[in-house]
Amino acid sequence: MITLDLTLPDTRYPIHIGQQLLGRADLLLPHIKHKKVALISNTTVAPLYLANLRQALENQGINVIPIVLPDGEDFKTWETLNQIFDALLQHRCERNTTLIALGGGVIGDMVGFAAACYQRGAPFIQIPTTLLAQVDSSVGGKTAINHPLGKNMIGVFYQPRVVVADMDLLDSLPERELSAGLAEVIKYGLLGNLAFLGWLEQNMEALRAKDKQALSYAVQTSCAMKADIVSQDEKEHGVRALLNLGHTFGHAIEAGLGFGTWLHGEAVGAGMLLAAETSRLLGNLSEADVQRVKAILEQAGLPTISPDLGVATWLELMSHDKKVSDGEIRFVLLQTLGQAQVATVPQDVLQQVLTGRFISKA
Amino acid sequence: MITLDLTLPDTRYPIHIGQQLLGRADLLLPHIKHKKVALISNTTVAPLYLANLRQALENQGINVIPIVLPDGEDFKTWETLNQIFDALLQHRCERNTTLIALGGGVIGDMVGFAAACYQRGAPFIQIPTTLLAQVDSSVGGKTAINHPLGKNMIGVFYQPRVVVADMDLLDSLPERELSAGLAEVIKYGLLGNLAFLGWLEQNMEALRAKDKQALSYAVQTSCAMKADIVSQDEKEHGVRALLNLGHTFGHAIEAGLGFGTWLHGEAVGAGMLLAAETSRLLGNLSEADVQRVKAILEQAGLPTISPDLGVATWLELMSHDKKVSDGEIRFVLLQTLGQAQVATVPQDVLQQVLTGRFISKA
Ligand SMILES: NC(=O)c1ccc[n+]([C@@H]2O[C@H](COP(=O)([O-])OP(=O)(O)OC[C@H]3O[C@@H](n4cnc5c(N)ncnc54)[C@H](O)[C@@H]3O)[C@@H](O)[C@H]2O)c1
Ligand SMILES: NC(=O)c1ccc[n+]([C@@H]2O[C@H](COP(=O)([O-])OP(=O)(O)OC[C@H]3O[C@@H](n4cnc5c(N)ncnc54)[C@H](O)[C@@H]3O)[C@@H](O)[C@H]2O)c1
Ligand SMILES: [Zn+2]
Ligand SMILES: [Zn+2]
Repeated sequence: MITLDLTLPDTRYPIHIGQQLLGRADLLLPHIKHKKVALISNTTVAPLYLANLRQALENQGINVIPIVLPDGEDFKTWETLNQIFDALLQHRCERNTTLIALGGGVIGDMVGFAAACYQRGAPFIQIPTTLLAQVDSSVGGKTAINHPLGKNMIGVFYQPRVVVADMDLLDSLPERELSAGLAEVIKYGLLGNLAFLGWLEQNMEALRAKDKQALSYAVQTSCAMKADIVSQDEKEHGVRALLNLGHTFGHAIEAGLGFGTWLHGEAVGAGMLLAAETSRLLGNLSEADVQRVKAILEQAGLPTISPDLGVATWLELMSHDKKVSDGEIRFVLLQTLGQAQVATVPQDVLQQVLTGRFISKA
Repeated sequence: MITLDLTLPDTRYPIHIGQQLLGRADLLLPHIKHKKVALISNTTVAPLYLANLRQALENQGINVIPIVLPDGEDFKTWETLNQIFDALLQHRCERNTTLIALGGGVIGDMVGFAAACYQRGAPFIQIPTTLLAQVDSSVGGKTAINHPLGKNMIGVFYQPRVVVADMDLLDSLPERELSAGLAEVIKYGLLGNLAFLGWLEQNMEALRAKDKQALSYAVQTSCAMKADIVSQDEKEHGVRALLNLGHTFGHAIEAGLGFGTWLHGEAVGAGMLLAAETSRLLGNLSEADVQRVKAILEQAGLPTISPDLGVATWLELMSHDKKVSDGEIRFVLLQTLGQAQVATVPQDVLQQVLTGRFISKA
């Protein structure tokens, strides 16, 4: 196991990464003040892992209230959030009751938001069970639910007390979900670490075969970069925006097709290629660079051709992006491979990208 | 006009108190970064004051989006909150759009919560239009909505950029609402300022006649005490809990009768008398002290006899209080008149209070 530390102005928390961590109540106990926890998961993950964790906690004399939610991005809504509140109140959970998120990014984002709002702030713990959640959503304190008019539109910044990323939990993860997680891993290489991109090109096969050493290294490297960026800019006033590489395009794909049609990671992957293509048209990347982005996505088993939403719909959907400022959409682009920047894009360039070679021809 | 300053670890904001402030766009402009605001009010307050404020802002070139919500504590719900989000997204409001709350505590609490959650945090401004909101809810950053199982159960701490309390707006405030606000004013005297309690006893008539000088002094003194306490303890880990004098009992009254039957301030007033009675039974207040509490509440036009919810219901409702810790209800009681403390109460004393002389005999 290795432990990273995320240090912020008001708090600081450990991120434990390794194997055989799910039964390790000792990693959680220092962060559970009152001996009552709500263990929140979904109908897919709970049957696999909830009982183990519950037992480990109950062995330590902790009162565990399991809450099992429906599975899927479609359920990342107020209604599901309210199921958490209902259960917490029915079980008389207090402001000191710790909420534990056991699941992927959907569970993590919702449980984090619920914890932030329950009696104006209950402690919470992240136990991410997808690669995507381990490398991205469980770290950094972004929480949210979706709104019909935009993804993750309603949420707050709220940090967990500890993150435990156990590679063993990925054994049961479907291949498609693993690939989606790899998109966010690739993102770290593209936006800030060219050497890591090289390592990924060499080790993609091992990652897709769920080699634990390789996965562990990828998660560590990703989390270290995320922790570093978040510690500089917790509330995304500046550099943290770079972590949204591929996300402005990606969110439009997710919303345009209906949340859950493409996986978040898939949409981000295809979105990164559109960002790369945009960067090329603006003169910052070479054609070889763009091809390298395309190739690593393909190696990871990710789609590279975005759906044809129609330019008007693309623009409409992207205009709801949280980075929009004074009416202008702001994109994360690549300055060079391994270095990202925020920029606006001239209308004609956008038009070209959104009707270009990386958009599906119906 | 006088201006108080609330200083917190991460922020600092002015509280302007005086007359003829509604048209003073100059007080708001320094706190509006992007020239777009959502002006949020309700069906009662909007017809009275929204046009004035809107005009003042539009004269400064600000794009104003009015959002008018249904009126009442019954509507302090997720559904109403969602009406705000719907409107913000339909009008393409950005993370930088400023939300202005123009109304009483219900509007202030909901708009604050909406601002906290909209795209993970939009700026917001409080323009309180009830006495209660001016002396209490608009200051300090508590935001919330209600849950069927408990009042203000879902919310966050989120501070406004500026608070503007204009005494002139109270001209239209119904008498009963004025009295409810006076309950929170009296609270400040009881919990921490005996001299102010004396001043209130002398000036209650002027306050109820809406004498602007008297109101202004009461609001200033109340806000100054609140600002002082909040600046010591923003997130209510300690001293801030004292501001909940009367509220554990009061919230049970509100929930027990159905939100909106008694006004919040009325419930808090009657709750303070129950807290005083409890303090007497515990040997801290004299009978004369309790009578003094009763008398000032009567002077303010407030009910002093709480409904008979039945002991079991009282306890059940109070067990949902946010101050509950390890299953024990914690009350704010009076150590002496003018000094509050947090304590637990033996079951038999509680029983006695909840069936005693300040409970209505059916
Ligand atoms: N907060 C952030 O900073 C942040 C960052 C990136 C993404 N996100 C959010 O994360 C979400 C996507 O997360 P995700 O990709 O983890 O999706 P997810 O949570 O929907 O999980 C994907 C699927 O895998 C299942 N699953 C989870 N763990 C499993 C396991 N160990 N074995 C078998 N099946 C398992 C889930 O039940 C689900 O069906 C999106 O809503 C996105 O907005 C948030
Ligand atoms: N956030 C906090 O710290 C805090 C503190 C105390 C109370 N609160 C909350 O505040 C709420 C109570 O606030 P409230 O007493 O202001 O209630 P309110 O907002 O419901 O206002 C009372 C009534 O007066 C009307 N009104 C408001 N201003 C008026 C005006 N100038 N002229 C005529 N009518 C006017 C309103 O439309 C409403 O019908 C409760 O929900 C309570 O939980 C919050
Ligand atoms: Zn992402
Ligand atoms: Zn109150």
